[in-house]
Amino acid sequence: MTTTRRTLLTVEEYLDELLGDLLDGAGAIPGTQDVPLAQALGRVLAQPVHAVGDVPAFANSGMDGYAVRHDDLGDPPVRLQVVADVAAGSGEDPRLEPGQCVRIMTGAPVPGCADTIVPVELTDAGTELVTITEAPERGRHVRGAGEDVSAGDVIADAGTTVTGRVLGSIAAAGTGTVTVRRRPVVAVAATGDELVAPGGSLQRGQIFESNGTHLAATLTELGAEVSSAVVLADDTDGFTRGLDALTDGADLVLLTGGVSVGAFDVSRIVLERSAGGTFRHVRMQPGKPQGWARWNGVPVLAFPGNPVSTAISFEVFGRPVLDRLLGRRRPDGPTTAVAATGWHSPAGRRQFVPVELTSDETGRLLATPTHRRGSASHMVTSLAGAHAMAIVPEDTDEVTAGDLVQIRSL
Amino acid sequence: MTTTRRTLLTVEEYLDELLGDLLDGAGAIPGTQDVPLAQALGRVLAQPVHAVGDVPAFANSGMDGYAVRHDDLGDPPVRLQVVADVAAGSGEDPRLEPGQCVRIMTGAPVPGCADTIVPVELTDAGTELVTITEAPERGRHVRGAGEDVSAGDVIADAGTTVTGRVLGSIAAAGTGTVTVRRRPVVAVAATGDELVAPGGSLQRGQIFESNGTHLAATLTELGAEVSSAVVLADDTDGFTRGLDALTDGADLVLLTGGVSVGAFDVSRIVLERSAGGTFRHVRMQPGKPQGWARWNGVPVLAFPGNPVSTAISFEVFGRPVLDRLLGRRRPDGPTTAVAATGWHSPAGRRQFVPVELTSDETGRLLATPTHRRGSASHMVTSLAGAHAMAIVPEDTDEVTAGDLVQIRSL
Repeated sequence: MTTTRRTLLTVEEYLDELLGDLLDGAGAIPGTQDVPLAQALGRVLAQPVHAVGDVPAFANSGMDGYAVRHDDLGDPPVRLQVVADVAAGSGEDPRLEPGQCVRIMTGAPVPGCADTIVPVELTDAGTELVTITEAPERGRHVRGAGEDVSAGDVIADAGTTVTGRVLGSIAAAGTGTVTVRRRPVVAVAATGDELVAPGGSLQRGQIFESNGTHLAATLTELGAEVSSAVVLADDTDGFTRGLDALTDGADLVLLTGGVSVGAFDVSRIVLERSAGGTFRHVRMQPGKPQGWARWNGVPVLAFPGNPVSTAISFEVFGRPVLDRLLGRRRPDGPTTAVAATGWHSPAGRRQFVPVELTSDETGRLLATPTHRRGSASHMVTSLAGAHAMAIVPEDTDEVTAGDLVQIRSL
Repeated sequence: MTTTRRTLLTVEEYLDELLGDLLDGAGAIPGTQDVPLAQALGRVLAQPVHAVGDVPAFANSGMDGYAVRHDDLGDPPVRLQVVADVAAGSGEDPRLEPGQCVRIMTGAPVPGCADTIVPVELTDAGTELVTITEAPERGRHVRGAGEDVSAGDVIADAGTTVTGRVLGSIAAAGTGTVTVRRRPVVAVAATGDELVAPGGSLQRGQIFESNGTHLAATLTELGAEVSSAVVLADDTDGFTRGLDALTDGADLVLLTGGVSVGAFDVSRIVLERSAGGTFRHVRMQPGKPQGWARWNGVPVLAFPGNPVSTAISFEVFGRPVLDRLLGRRRPDGPTTAVAATGWHSPAGRRQFVPVELTSDETGRLLATPTHRRGSASHMVTSLAGAHAMAIVPEDTDEVTAGDLVQIRSL
């Protein structure tokens, strides 16, 4: 049994090493594509999107009713002559003389001579002459040009992940094609002769392989293209051949398992021997053993194989690396919650705990660990229902109900 | 101008009408598929998934070290004979006599005779004889069979949306194929002659069409199959023909625009005349005019055409209808936040306000409206950055900073 002493790094130190040394301090991967909005869902904007014009583009009516000059309303009830109808989509701009008005529909352009909309509910709904029973204040129900957005305003920044709502805003501001990052090609491999594909049956010592399934799906959710998700042999020759195949055409390879100090930890052994790989102990729980290398020039991240360790490692290290490749900005959101129950945390290590988020009757965000029993890192099912990770600092060994905890959305 | 008086319904009354009368009180659409995990992302489980066996399936080591009988540790330092090596994946169960131990790797099965793992850090790492310098407590670092999950436990309920993390849990618990709902086929159409596709140029009175882009992408995100997203003509004949085409093969049709009381509101006119459609005013803002019908037997929902009204209507009515078709359970999460700023709300109507969520230094969840200026319902760009909707009750006309508000995640 090797008892390699490894440098102990903080989470930040190791992440700096990944973004700096592993990625050579580079930014997003080269390659962008211009895609129509209908194909942009889930992609990351490579360039900001600006409003092509004012939104709304013209002053329009917020109600069905009558466009009037406010000066004509005087002391209601007043009677005005209806000289035109303007529907939504109409290009007309009828001229109003004193004492005249036009019938107007919601969204229709307000005639240049009018300054106020009288909702139909405040009238007798007349079509040639209309009696207005109540005068709204001047300017009421007129939505001014550019009231939402001015031409040139940034609708979505570079680095934004394109969701349905982002697409709606981009479309409303007039852009039909956006420039997005190429999808990074990511290969995933688990190592371990003890791994059996789900659906099979286990002999003593064997476990079901779940990391590949989890990472491939999560990468897909995050906009990557997963080129393969395989299990590599535990022998160094088979592993080496597998890694050659995985790196072919990939922007990133994620490995799980075999990163520890044991004599059979093939990821570590091969990456250290053949690629000058760097393996570290990181002051965190779970996820202490971590490693990285470049193989055929392709960045390779090696995570510990326990499913929860893999999941947390991916969130803490894999996701920032992927975001860097995509040039993605991390979305904001709540960062602090209140522990709903207490739990232990290892002194000297930063703890990442999958939590459910709920709220109490005072508007506080409550974080409840999702593991069923104990606090061990092997609770694979604790991830399914988690909304976030609670992050407990290195100098804390006990979280008490009511404590503030840092959280990060999953 | 028609001044149709419509029945005023609460949000709940109208939603009941949709789930009851429109959907005939039916449950999920018929049709399920058995898919391998690699194809299940984003689908909705039609049946619960159970653990095929205990997880872990066997007692295993949480550390690299030595599996011992605790009785042998006595008063350390003690020296034990190393009689075997057990690696992860090994099927062996070596027998231990008193004074003997086995070297063991993380994840390897703990021999039946051993009850405690001594981490290598508490030893001299010997390979034939090992000196143990410190005795962990009995049972330490042994992860018991079934400690995470027992055979038969529910890993994911029917109605669960399959995410990467859900897939990881299902795989770890041994299931390789899941039964999911058929994707509901949804057709989307906007109405309005004033609509111009994004990328075009606007004449006076015209606006960019964004609802189809937004709804199609959002439906895709939610696991529906969007059969088409088109703009229908504003004339009744063209609209009728379009609706015939849209309903062909669809489980649901979403229309935007033309639902109000105006003389040109084609959705309302055609659906009322030709399909006995029901149009309502709902006590909400935005989204007051709403309608539904069955066209060729297919449920049709008609939303108001303003982009924010459409988006809110979809969240409040469209999404529950889609979830019903999918048999999906609404995920839980925080439901209460604190207003970060004040805003007006219309008396007598329930207000839905897109908000960003952040947290303050006391763990409270803060809701900040995302609209840039004013509080009007036409702020199309207010949706892009929203995390949730704040929901202000009918009897409130003013929200003050610090007030508790109900929220619903988007």
